[in-house]
Amino acid sequence: MITVVKIGGNVIDSPEATARFVADFAALEGPKILIHGGGKLATRLSAQLGIESLMIDGRRVTDRQTLDVVTMVYAGLVNKQLVAALSAAGCRSIGLSGADGDAITSVRRAVGEVDYGYVGDIAPDGVRSDLLASLLDAGLTPVFCAITCDGHGTLLNTNADSVASAVAVAAARIAPTRLVFCFEKRGVLRDVEDEASVIAEITPESYAALRAGGVINKGMLPKIDGAFRAIDGGVSCVVIKRADELLSESGTTIRK
Amino acid sequence: MITVVKIGGNVIDSPEATARFVADFAALEGPKILIHGGGKLATRLSAQLGIESLMIDGRRVTDRQTLDVVTMVYAGLVNKQLVAALSAAGCRSIGLSGADGDAITSVRRAVGEVDYGYVGDIAPDGVRSDLLASLLDAGLTPVFCAITCDGHGTLLNTNADSVASAVAVAAARIAPTRLVFCFEKRGVLRDVEDEASVIAEITPESYAALRAGGVINKGMLPKIDGAFRAIDGGVSCVVIKRADELLSESGTTIRK
Repeated sequence: MITVVKIGGNVIDSPEATARFVADFAALEGPKILIHGGGKLATRLSAQLGIESLMIDGRRVTDRQTLDVVTMVYAGLVNKQLVAALSAAGCRSIGLSGADGDAITSVRRAVGEVDYGYVGDIAPDGVRSDLLASLLDAGLTPVFCAITCDGHGTLLNTNADSVASAVAVAAARIAPTRLVFCFEKRGVLRDVEDEASVIAEITPESYAALRAGGVINKGMLPKIDGAFRAIDGGVSCVVIKRADELLSESGTTIRK
Repeated sequence: MITVVKIGGNVIDSPEATARFVADFAALEGPKILIHGGGKLATRLSAQLGIESLMIDGRRVTDRQTLDVVTMVYAGLVNKQLVAALSAAGCRSIGLSGADGDAITSVRRAVGEVDYGYVGDIAPDGVRSDLLASLLDAGLTPVFCAITCDGHGTLLNTNADSVASAVAVAAARIAPTRLVFCFEKRGVLRDVEDEASVIAEITPESYAALRAGGVINKGMLPKIDGAFRAIDGGVSCVVIKRADELLSESGTTIRK
């Protein structure tokens, strides 16, 4: 079983949370792959450089200067610090953007009502599972940032959740794969105010009932829809949980 | 024959020179490895961020903030832009720092008269030739920036010429290897004012004579001494030439 784990800002932005996560992830058994977002550092660095950070619907509009900033922060600083820390913890890792080994090919998002700039969506079959297989076979843990490439020399800022899903689908062509999204909550909650109300399992049937009953809050719907798409793509199950509960049986498991 | 090529600021700092180099390097036959320096961008970014760049004897003093800047610029922006451009030119590449796959282990420089901060010198046998071999076997061209790691989670800024030499010595354990330093001059010149005065070949014997005659200028001596050390380490020959003459028979070849 290959485990693909995605972490975001709530881990990246805290040195303590990162240290804890690195130790736990290194202890995770079996072949594994890490995908990380960028956290707030790109916004902070942009501000220091006088570049305005423009977000539309939670997505960063990426002009040329902003692309350089996110490439520096995500593919450079965050990725290499994680790789160095993981290797020191005994998990020999290799940091990758989508450009490396043509690992992830994306398509620049067409300009519609909004021009997101240098933002890419992963191409169908855009992740090279042969590269993942050869790295895993060599005993290496791939660590992906969410910068991809259009195959024609242009880097593209990409949604890290989408990278995680696409990498998990590609990994599932090698071996059974589970995908873990580390989240700020303990899982999908029946009551968003109550961390003890984690829904242990969601299936297509129970999801329909939960939606009909208005139990799941709107922000979770795209995450769960994405999880089902990954499962349709061959991933065995998707788990949503807190990063600091990585090694425990916790969170919400989504499966068919 | 594996070819290891090192480029520095005179390529990196010019988009035109980079584009030309990428096309030429992609056209180079046989397995190959690229090592790049960082150019002036790190100094420029430091200035924008209000971080003072302190150079002593041509080496950058690397405090914590400066380490973050060079990691962003070298391992992030410059490395990924090169990898994306090379892949677009048909040379499937994988960008690496020394932390990735524990590729290059270094030792933090001891504090003597000068504290260089987060600066590392490559450990004896610090380059993993098994990793180079498996990447080359997979048809990938490794592209190294000059950020290494101490194996305990700390990234270290490292001299790019030293990285190139150490990588070439490690590659020579896989197959015969030549090391090419791209330089601002056409090679080692008899007359530093005359680009036509390239010394075609330097051997230990001719080097002794050239030194005794005061023909080679002082700045070149460390480069040539380094070349002979690489040859002592198993590298077949070292070539010093201009980047835009990469594919031509030109420059100075140093051999035993």
